[in-house]
Parts: sequence; C-alpha cells; structure tokens
Amino acid sequence: MTGPRYPDLIESLPATVPFVGPEVQERQRGAPFRARLGANESCFGPSPFAVAAMQDEAAEIWKYADPTFFDLRAALAAHLNCTPANIVLGEGIDGLLGYIVRLLVAPGDAVVTSDGAYPTFNYHVSGFGGTLHKVPYRDDHEDLPTLLDKARETGAKLVYLSNPDNPMGTWLSGARIEAALDAIPEGTVLALDEAYAEFAPAEAIPGIAIDDPRVIRFRTFSKGYGMAGARIGYAYGADETIRAFDKIRNHFGMNRFAVAGALAALHDQTWLSEVIAQVNEAKARIAAIAADNGLNALPSATNFVTVDCGRDGDFARKVLTGLIERGVFVRMPFVAPQDRCIRISTGFPADLDVLAECLPEALRAAS
Amino acid sequence: MTGPRYPDLIESLPATVPFVGPEVQERQRGAPFRARLGANESCFGPSPFAVAAMQDEAAEIWKYADPTFFDLRAALAAHLNCTPANIVLGEGIDGLLGYIVRLLVAPGDAVVTSDGAYPTFNYHVSGFGGTLHKVPYRDDHEDLPTLLDKARETGAKLVYLSNPDNPMGTWLSGARIEAALDAIPEGTVLALDEAYAEFAPAEAIPGIAIDDPRVIRFRTFSKGYGMAGARIGYAYGADETIRAFDKIRNHFGMNRFAVAGALAALHDQTWLSEVIAQVNEAKARIAAIAADNGLNALPSATNFVTVDCGRDGDFARKVLTGLIERGVFVRMPFVAPQDRCIRISTGFPADLDVLAECLPEALRAAS
Repeated sequence: MTGPRYPDLIESLPATVPFVGPEVQERQRGAPFRARLGANESCFGPSPFAVAAMQDEAAEIWKYADPTFFDLRAALAAHLNCTPANIVLGEGIDGLLGYIVRLLVAPGDAVVTSDGAYPTFNYHVSGFGGTLHKVPYRDDHEDLPTLLDKARETGAKLVYLSNPDNPMGTWLSGARIEAALDAIPEGTVLALDEAYAEFAPAEAIPGIAIDDPRVIRFRTFSKGYGMAGARIGYAYGADETIRAFDKIRNHFGMNRFAVAGALAALHDQTWLSEVIAQVNEAKARIAAIAADNGLNALPSATNFVTVDCGRDGDFARKVLTGLIERGVFVRMPFVAPQDRCIRISTGFPADLDVLAECLPEALRAAS
Repeated sequence: MTGPRYPDLIESLPATVPFVGPEVQERQRGAPFRARLGANESCFGPSPFAVAAMQDEAAEIWKYADPTFFDLRAALAAHLNCTPANIVLGEGIDGLLGYIVRLLVAPGDAVVTSDGAYPTFNYHVSGFGGTLHKVPYRDDHEDLPTLLDKARETGAKLVYLSNPDNPMGTWLSGARIEAALDAIPEGTVLALDEAYAEFAPAEAIPGIAIDDPRVIRFRTFSKGYGMAGARIGYAYGADETIRAFDKIRNHFGMNRFAVAGALAALHDQTWLSEVIAQVNEAKARIAAIAADNGLNALPSATNFVTVDCGRDGDFARKVLTGLIERGVFVRMPFVAPQDRCIRISTGFPADLDVLAECLPEALRAAS
C-alpha cells in the first residue's frame, strides 16, 4: 500500500507555518494572554452596523454567496473611484497574495521582496516554486529603488512592497512611489500591500492610474475595519489583471458574513475615523511606555508601534519572551537589524496598562 | 508599459467559472427567483445553536481564527472516531479539492474522474495543469471499477469519486467501495467526496481505515448542516497526507463565524435528524410532482432529486430554461446521457408549490 506521490516541488516544501497563532501559545503556557497585542488586529472591532449586518446574515447563511460580489464590488468601486471590473474580492490579503503569486510565478521564476518583509508572501512564493530575491531594509524602511534594481537584475515577475510597512510601521511617501513607477522593469508587476492604508497619512498613498498594468494594490477589512476573523480583502488594478483572478480563484469560497459585514463597514466611515483616533491615542501611549523604559518607538503609519529595544536581536527576543511569559502577546521582526525591535499592536487602555506593568519586568529579566 | 507575464499554464486557462450563481441569473431576468432549488443548499438552515454561536462570535470577529482549529478538530475527531491529526479544515470542499489537486498534480499529471461529475474538481485540475481522463457514468452511477482501470492505464495521481453522487443523486454501497479499494493502483489517491453523506443510507458509507494512505475523504457543513454560505468543510485521512496540507493551505484563511458555527452545528445532531426528515419529505414530494407530470425521479441519497425529463438533453435544457424563466432556480447535468435530467434541490413546501405550479408550464413550453 503506497501513499500519495507528491511532485518534487511539494516534497521540497517545509511543513512550517508562516506564523504561530496566539491560541497555540496560550495552550503552551496554560493560560490565556492578558493582552492580545501581537497580530495587529483591531480590538476596537468593526462598526456596530457591520456587526448587525453580520448577525442579520445568519438568516441567509444557508445560501452560497454571490460569487461576483455585485453589491460589495459596486460599493468599493464608488469608494475607490474605479469600476467593479477593477476589483477582486478574496479570503483576506493572504488569500489574494496566494492568487497573484499563482497567476504570475512558475517554478524558477524570480520574485523580489525585502529581507524581513511579510512571511506569508514568501510562503506563497516558495509554495509555487518561485525564487525569492531579498533586498535589505534601508534605515528601517523598504528600499523601493533597490527592490526595482533587483527586479531588473533578476528579471522578476513580481515585486512585493508593503506601504505602510509591516513589521516596521514606517512608510514611503506616495510621491516617492509614484516617482519610482517608471523604474519598474518591463513585465514586472509591483504588488503593493496597503493593508494598513487606513491608518496612514494621506501623503503615504500614491496616485496610480487604475489601468496601470504594472501595479496591483491590496487592501483588507482586517485592520482598520476590525474584521480580521472574517477574512475579507480585495485587490484592485487594471481590469485585465483582475480578470485573470477569475481563472483560478475559489469562486464560491467567500463567507456571506464577511461580505455582508464588509459592505456595512465600508459605509460607516465615521466608525473608521473613531477607530483611527483610538489607534492614534494608543500609539502615543505605547511610545510613552517605551520612553518610560528608555526605549525608542519608531514612527508608525499603521495600527502598531515597533519599539527599538536598543540592543541586538538576542536581547529583543528575550524581551519578547519575557512579555509573552507575563501574558502579553507581541511579535517581532524576524531579520537583523530590524530584529532589535519588538512590534506592539494598539489596544484599549486596559491592554496597555498590562504592557506598562510587564515591560519593565521583561526588560529587567532580559538584561 | 507592459503588463504581467503569465506562465503558459495560466495563459491557457479559460476565464470561465465552474458555475454561474443564481444572483447573476436574477439580475439578468430582472427579478428574484420565486424558489431557490438549484444549488443543493439547505433552506432548512443551520441549527439554532449554530446560528446563536455565529451571532455571538461577532464580538470576537476582530481576531484571526486559531489556525489549528483546536476545538473544532477535537470535536470532529470524536465524531469520526479518529484523531485531530487526521483532519484538515478548509474553505468548503471546493477549497480543499483545490488543495489536494495542488498537492498531487503537477503539469501533465493524469487525473481521473467521471464524465459529468463535479465541475469544480475539473476546474482545479485544469488550473494546476493536470490532464483529465473521464470515464462515462454507467446507468446513472459513477463506475468505480472503470475509474480505477483508467487510473491504472494512465498512471493517475488522483481519482475523484463523489458518493452519494452529484449531479445524479445515486450512490454506490460502502461494501462496493471497500471491495474496490484493493484495485486502487499503487500511488493513486482516491478523493472520496462525501458532501452528501449525512443524507445517505448507512450502507452507502464505506468503512475505510483512517490511516489508509490510498483514500482521502471530504465532508462539509454546507449541505446537511445548512451552512453553505459559511464555507467550511474538512478532509480526513492518513495523518501524513493531512499534514501535507499545512505546506500550502492559507493558514489564517478561515472565517471565525464558520468555525464557531460548525462546532455548534456538529453538537446538534437532533437538528440534523430533523433536517434529514424534512429533506426526505421534500424528496418524496418532488418525486410526486415529477410523476404528476409523467416524469421519473431517480432515487436519491442526497438533498436533491434528479428528474429524468424522458427525452434528450435539448429537451431537458428547454424545461430548465422554462423553469428559470418562471422563477424556479434549478440546474442540470452537463453531459449526455445524464443531461436528459434536471436537478431539483429540496425546499420548503411553499418552494415545491412553486415547482408544482411551474413544471407543467415549462414542460408544455418545451414540447
């Protein structure tokens, strides 16, 4: 009795996961976290209108969702000033990044990203057999000119840029991205991950013609709109690129609660503004807590604050471990020199009280 | 300015969809359907406990779901008499079929299915460059011995069997499937789609050792449990095969409502029994309506009834069109000779009243 015969590509893949979830850590430590500040979720949650829309949708949950997402795409098109043909919905940006990688990357094809940028993108590239070329951060920012130089050098099909950046929270100005567009090599696509766009200053958002085939942008309802557990995001760009997703996507794969909630959330921009205000307050508080402990918070255009622990990666990892042991779920960059930092998501004042209580102890234990 | 460079495989794929959703048809006809009986959804809906669990989950929707699905896999393991390591959750059987195809099928690899079986499976095989070999139905049943012969002849990595069968509603006995297992060629995996298992007689469910690496089974909360719009299904089989999914799946891709609802739904087997009773009543009524119109209903082990319109595919397509024009959403098999039939999902008595009203008119118009 023999088992499955996996292709060489599948055999070569590690059975690792891009991230360990906090629930796994909670089971390991035998207690729930006191403060959940590690996954850049929004504890402020979605608009009450979105909550109501999702709860009302229970009566319709016996039906598959409309696989064209007619209403939601129309609303997004109005919001983004484009047409529904420029938008594809997907199972979060994670799912959509998987689709764009599958659409463009055949085994051996070159792909460029920053060393230490979003691991789930790398997971997809490896999963489809692409060859990753990594460019270092420059002063804690993604280095777009060098990313594009690397794309030209390697003939990359795809370049990944997150703006604002995760895990550092830094950003490039929209003007810099616009100016760099002409340096995109022929036949390279820039995947612009704007998961944190709602938190960014207006000047961080580039103006890019919707029909520019060199760029595809990714947004989500997981961050500003507070619906990470619903798994709904979208990609937008040239209609021909968007249409290609229809060749491979799981057409009946979206959850009705997510679709209904996203539509209602999009219509409640007042709630979004209030969340952004709460996030800004929390970011100031995290920076103050860091300063109280002699640490430096990086400027952030996201819903998290990356805090420089002032020494090397080993030290920051010890601080992180100390926080986790004390019930504070946080994460940190994977790669030096960014791994001198820990990454703290915004939370309610009570969550940050726990951080304020535990950080000094974690620092002492690490020293 | 050039656009994306798609690999040859992607260029070769049609931009078609496996199914057109009823919402598209409703927009085309300018009116909602009077009876939604085409997608084998369960209008009886999920358990009230599942509805409550999903509505309660709104308070947690700001968090990503536990990517290991610890609680739900433990409950499923108890239900299936296996271990959590034998179970992988996914975005409906559609999503899981995509994963198993991606795990096993490299471009050019042979895959075997029945001619006229589930199109979404074929969509995934084509999408990953597999070569589909199709075996005709035999007397409206999938022909397992011939499927396995074809697998041996072509060296297939994967054979698809749905039991009970969609679109015909027929089934093979579990004993026949068990007896056929030894004919599975070395290195071939049987993907056993049991989406409709809850509606089947006990004798239709084969006893297969959970650690048998030749078989992987697929189940869903979309049909019996009434949660099609939640998109949650599972595959179960040998732990090594299940572990391979972790190499490629979208770990943070599942919706929290779906996970919470599935757990509550699984615990309410009383509700499931009541749904099955309602489905059985509705199947008897559909058969009676068919008989009243001189048509023959096939026996069904699912939540739909396939009705033989007694002539050829052109005639059945006209009947289908007539029903759709009159507001009855139904579907039909794609391939001759099964396309002499239309497929009618079970519904409430009021839905079937609409069917009873419209079927004679549709038949007259088609004649």
